Amino acid sequence: VRASDPLPSWAEGPAKESILGFIQRVSAPGSPEEVPASERIAVFDNDGTLWSEQPMYVQAFFAFDRVRQLAPEHPEWREREPFASILRGDLATSLQGGEPALLEIIMATHAGLTTDEFDRVVSDWISEARHPVTKRRFTQMVYLPMLEILAHLRKSGFKTFIVSGGGIDFMRPWAEAVYGVPPEQVVGSSIRLAYQYRDGSPVIERLAEIDFIDDKVGKPVGIQQHIGRRPILAFGNSDGDYQMLEWTTAGSGPRLGVLIHHTDNEREQAYDRDSLVGRLDRALREAPVQGWAVIDMKRDWRQIYPASVQP
Amino acid sequence: VRASDPLPSWAEGPAKESILGFIQRVSAPGSPEEVPASERIAVFDNDGTLWSEQPMYVQAFFAFDRVRQLAPEHPEWREREPFASILRGDLATSLQGGEPALLEIIMATHAGLTTDEFDRVVSDWISEARHPVTKRRFTQMVYLPMLEILAHLRKSGFKTFIVSGGGIDFMRPWAEAVYGVPPEQVVGSSIRLAYQYRDGSPVIERLAEIDFIDDKVGKPVGIQQHIGRRPILAFGNSDGDYQMLEWTTAGSGPRLGVLIHHTDNEREQAYDRDSLVGRLDRALREAPVQGWAVIDMKRDWRQIYPASVQP
Ligand SMILES: [Ca+2]
Ligand SMILES: [Ca+2]
Repeated sequence: VRASDPLPSWAEGPAKESILGFIQRVSAPGSPEEVPASERIAVFDNDGTLWSEQPMYVQAFFAFDRVRQLAPEHPEWREREPFASILRGDLATSLQGGEPALLEIIMATHAGLTTDEFDRVVSDWISEARHPVTKRRFTQMVYLPMLEILAHLRKSGFKTFIVSGGGIDFMRPWAEAVYGVPPEQVVGSSIRLAYQYRDGSPVIERLAEIDFIDDKVGKPVGIQQHIGRRPILAFGNSDGDYQMLEWTTAGSGPRLGVLIHHTDNEREQAYDRDSLVGRLDRALREAPVQGWAVIDMKRDWRQIYPASVQP
Repeated sequence: VRASDPLPSWAEGPAKESILGFIQRVSAPGSPEEVPASERIAVFDNDGTLWSEQPMYVQAFFAFDRVRQLAPEHPEWREREPFASILRGDLATSLQGGEPALLEIIMATHAGLTTDEFDRVVSDWISEARHPVTKRRFTQMVYLPMLEILAHLRKSGFKTFIVSGGGIDFMRPWAEAVYGVPPEQVVGSSIRLAYQYRDGSPVIERLAEIDFIDDKVGKPVGIQQHIGRRPILAFGNSDGDYQMLEWTTAGSGPRLGVLIHHTDNEREQAYDRDSLVGRLDRALREAPVQGWAVIDMKRDWRQIYPASVQP
């Protein structure tokens, strides 16, 4: 590893070369393929691309913890699914109700408070909560190789955006400290908001109604609504990112799509087409035809997580 | 005017002093009221705040021109309101149908094509169209004093956003060249989008359905959805900006709300509480109580428009 290597936790090889080569080609002054800085837009899926998503999405841990925290105000939950199972610690049963059950959990835990209050609830939780297996804070389960990519892109004149199926206001409170991505560069799923007054002061209330699902075909739409131009670089890890990578790489000029393939059962978890969380099937199959780079975590990443700094 | 004056087209006086003083207080290194650069968010209404909006919104000129342009493909419009009146040049009658008529005009002229196509249609139109009275291009009817404010804010570490009731994708094609505001920092009203395929290539289609109205109580909501934090500085010119200024200035720490009052009947147009376009009544009345600065265009602006560079 040279002292000047911007990606020291990446193993040498074609994956690292293709990413470094692309960034060099579009950003080196005088490069024949140089892209104007204003068009250097890079988008990143979050769960499974920037941080771990197994055994379940971090936001699901948050929602279940919040059900337990709010339970004393809701004695009826002890008899009512999907809450009763969560309170008994039986998460699998709580999710047997499918999407309606999930929606009910999200609305019970993410709505009914103001944006400022929700920001505080998320900030408090993320500063304390730990992964049940690794015992690390979730913000210490971000991928060091991806932090290096983010930093190198910004140094190369890119604007870096998160485009996630996760809740936009669940990511914003910590994305800047953890990823260097400010709130205005986070795109995600959202619930409806309403401008209201409490004791004469204005607040923005979070309503129990879905506004936008930023997944699959929703990702290019979210990109257009928030960013307003087509990215030239996209990183994802599941079939939920298929359309984002397709939209990114179908434009003219130099473009790159990258898939993170979870292949490391020792340092993280190996999963793809059979996983409920982060299912990767079609995108992996079509990657060669689409010209997308596939990162093999086990082979291409020398280190997964940053050195632990807990507690 | 000193050579170092960042606002040379502003007359000396309390308006200029309050704005310059605020920017200095929050951005000068070591200032007791210094605000972290990441929190230096400034938002600007567009119509009547950054460019002229009389005798009607620029986007309305665009819509009417586009009805005329599309008319050959729609022979039925010659008999059907609101289109028949537009084609006869009788814009007042065309708008007598109120909001449903307006909506029909917008959907007929802004939907049914892809985002890339709409971008091109807007870019072509704005490079040619001229104001009926001044004969200037609309992009030459931006306010020079506001361009100076935008530049001075960016030099002082602010991020500048447009937050307009106008169409987000109507502003984005030219906002960067004209205001220095990139597409991802434009917030506005929007119609629904859909990711689809045409001849095997992905496109984003503009659907004939309203997605979001970024006006009045919609402005703080649009700010939250797009920016994700509360601005510390807001400029507006009408009652449609009331909630944006209220939300901005109700937070803690140093904050400033500014109203542009159109008082100059010689160089532009004097209007406020009785105007259909850009009506300013409640916000002007409550400005002293709210602590908002009021710019008197006639008194405070030495020059309105940039020196003309047409044709
Ligand atoms: Ca993912
Ligand atoms: Ca206005």
